[in-house]
Amino acid sequence: MSVQVTIEKMAAQAKKAARVMASLSSEAKNRVLLRMAEALLANQEYIQAENGKDLVAGREKGLSAAMLDRLELSEKVMQSMVAGLHEVAALPDPVGEVSEMANRPSGITVGRMRVPLGVIAMIYESRPNVTVDAAALCLKSGNAILLRGGSEAIHSNLALAKVLQDVLAAEDIDPAALQVVPTTDRQAVNFLLSLEEYIDLVIPRGGEGLIRFVAENSRIPVLKHYKGVCHQFVDASAEIKMAVDIVVNGKTHRPGVCNALECLLVHQDIAATFLPEVALALTAAGVELRGCPRTKAIVADCRAAEDGDWGMEFLDLILAVKVVDDMDAAMDHIARYGSQHTDNIVTADYGNAQRWLREIDASAVMVNASTRFNDGGEFGLGAEIGISTTKLHAYGPMGLKELTTKKFIVYGDGQVRS
Amino acid sequence: MSVQVTIEKMAAQAKKAARVMASLSSEAKNRVLLRMAEALLANQEYIQAENGKDLVAGREKGLSAAMLDRLELSEKVMQSMVAGLHEVAALPDPVGEVSEMANRPSGITVGRMRVPLGVIAMIYESRPNVTVDAAALCLKSGNAILLRGGSEAIHSNLALAKVLQDVLAAEDIDPAALQVVPTTDRQAVNFLLSLEEYIDLVIPRGGEGLIRFVAENSRIPVLKHYKGVCHQFVDASAEIKMAVDIVVNGKTHRPGVCNALECLLVHQDIAATFLPEVALALTAAGVELRGCPRTKAIVADCRAAEDGDWGMEFLDLILAVKVVDDMDAAMDHIARYGSQHTDNIVTADYGNAQRWLREIDASAVMVNASTRFNDGGEFGLGAEIGISTTKLHAYGPMGLKELTTKKFIVYGDGQVRS
Repeated sequence: MSVQVTIEKMAAQAKKAARVMASLSSEAKNRVLLRMAEALLANQEYIQAENGKDLVAGREKGLSAAMLDRLELSEKVMQSMVAGLHEVAALPDPVGEVSEMANRPSGITVGRMRVPLGVIAMIYESRPNVTVDAAALCLKSGNAILLRGGSEAIHSNLALAKVLQDVLAAEDIDPAALQVVPTTDRQAVNFLLSLEEYIDLVIPRGGEGLIRFVAENSRIPVLKHYKGVCHQFVDASAEIKMAVDIVVNGKTHRPGVCNALECLLVHQDIAATFLPEVALALTAAGVELRGCPRTKAIVADCRAAEDGDWGMEFLDLILAVKVVDDMDAAMDHIARYGSQHTDNIVTADYGNAQRWLREIDASAVMVNASTRFNDGGEFGLGAEIGISTTKLHAYGPMGLKELTTKKFIVYGDGQVRS
Repeated sequence: MSVQVTIEKMAAQAKKAARVMASLSSEAKNRVLLRMAEALLANQEYIQAENGKDLVAGREKGLSAAMLDRLELSEKVMQSMVAGLHEVAALPDPVGEVSEMANRPSGITVGRMRVPLGVIAMIYESRPNVTVDAAALCLKSGNAILLRGGSEAIHSNLALAKVLQDVLAAEDIDPAALQVVPTTDRQAVNFLLSLEEYIDLVIPRGGEGLIRFVAENSRIPVLKHYKGVCHQFVDASAEIKMAVDIVVNGKTHRPGVCNALECLLVHQDIAATFLPEVALALTAAGVELRGCPRTKAIVADCRAAEDGDWGMEFLDLILAVKVVDDMDAAMDHIARYGSQHTDNIVTADYGNAQRWLREIDASAVMVNASTRFNDGGEFGLGAEIGISTTKLHAYGPMGLKELTTKKFIVYGDGQVRS
């Protein structure tokens, strides 16, 4: 059987299973999630043995230590997958929620009911724990899921899927609700992305290259963010210590993630007092500054920023710094170089705070808080399946609700249209 | 200047104008809409003269009478565009609405603010009044709009856009917020659909061919419905008169539109009493029935349905009719042949009504009401820009809210992540 036939058959079966998933009770879904947690522990030896094959192959292929670390299903990662399943089981079930019910002049009563999307395809890279975390969120929200991980993790992903599918089968649920695509070449991904008849949503997670490939080739809607180039503007009225703390936290708390701070914009009226202090704190934390000429005039030993440093996602202990004339100049800079991910202002000015919240176009717009707070857990969504900087459907962290949609429901008693 | 350079420049200007549109007050937007209504009336002679060029060209090209009718900006159509502008001005402004505000354990306060999408591209066919109707909805929701109508209506569309742009300019708003793409070949559409950097959403309106072309070639999210194959199931417990009235209304009230009824499914226990009555009423209304063998056994003079009649959007006085064993068989038929547009049950059974509402996967699921009610006006959204059977972002009629998204806003007072 050709790869295409296999994948199309999997997608068709997933669509069939999605009808079953959509009508499962919350109680049934939670029971499945908790049994999956038990099954992971009961099959830990098997899973880690399969994971071992990937680790051996990875070492042979010369993967970096960081890559091998992401690939390993250590005791700690196993425990975090189990904890994740418990956490998702404890979240409220969004499916079936009815809202906006109203009587209409015609006599019908119209409202909206929250329903699963159907079939979700996750396309991701090396971390095999995504297999379990994503499956939990999709199943809890009543969806079927097709998982296509990276080639480095194929044994691990297939083993995890087998253990989870056995639980579905034991609970009399079609195991096609959760499937790992067994081929990992881009050809197969490309074909998967054409199956709009069966798949309702694609979520890519990984490097910008993978995400661009998916976005450019998909006929199915994609929720994604390419990168997080988070900006912070320090207004003339900012309290200096607060601004320093927030910059240092944004940049150094976890520099390799998408909500880390990448560019600092400073109002010219506060630059002379604020920049030396923040430079001292950042340098002490090992951060390299790349400043505009006005920044360098104040922080002499700072490296000169080049054109490519504006809009750059460093994902490292590097920060671009620019002195701007006023808030409008800061907003223009963000409109040009921002990534619509997270942008923060530090200010004591009421009007500027309100204007910032209204006018900055980003999935999370903040006043006086670290960009690091842009996260499903911190925002109260529970576990998150990703962050979207696409404005359609979801803008920002995506939790269970973002894996659902709302259909219209109508109660009539014989009304016809006149 | 090449067509591509022209279009890219228009899109870039639209994106710039979108920032202005997003921060306009409701009062300013409403004033613009009302001035646009005045301007249409003041320039009626010019608009109709330009429309006359399209009508002459259309007659020369041999367009059908129906096509020419759709193309004509008659006194009546002019009045309806003016009324539409007044109607949209009177609708509540969705932009700026804040919801779900909550304090988080970290001390930050998080909520969501409704904001415009940015730049919306409408791709449509012959009716030039769409130019005004769509522009009104996009401007009221704070978006910029790129309009690309059909070649038959190019003079009309450019004239309408000129009149509306003059109003924007007189109100000191960048006229690039509303632009008609001056070229109408598919090449130009294809290029437009690649400009994801500038355009946030594409809405195609027209025949299935146009919509498929847009969906298959767009890198930008698309909200669409290919067709409306609306089903109605008459349950064993249905009240016969109610079921007959709803079927006749669904089929005959306006057979050429997407929420017209196309397929009738009848529970076997009620077929012998219901089918003769509904056949009588439908035949009297000029409807041709195409029945399954069990239908033909009851309604002898009914034409035999062929395979292609199931899932067919007739858009005409034709109805496919099938007798099914039970509600499950009806639901299976809809899962296979439906278009996720509108599906109705007529029933007196509480459990079946509730199960129908929960389990049918369609943008509007109805109990005891005509499918013709699936409409933004009837559902209380005000004017609608289209109906989506895509599940992402909007599912069902799309009004002003569906032309917006929600971003996260965070109020902090110095919080950092620990």
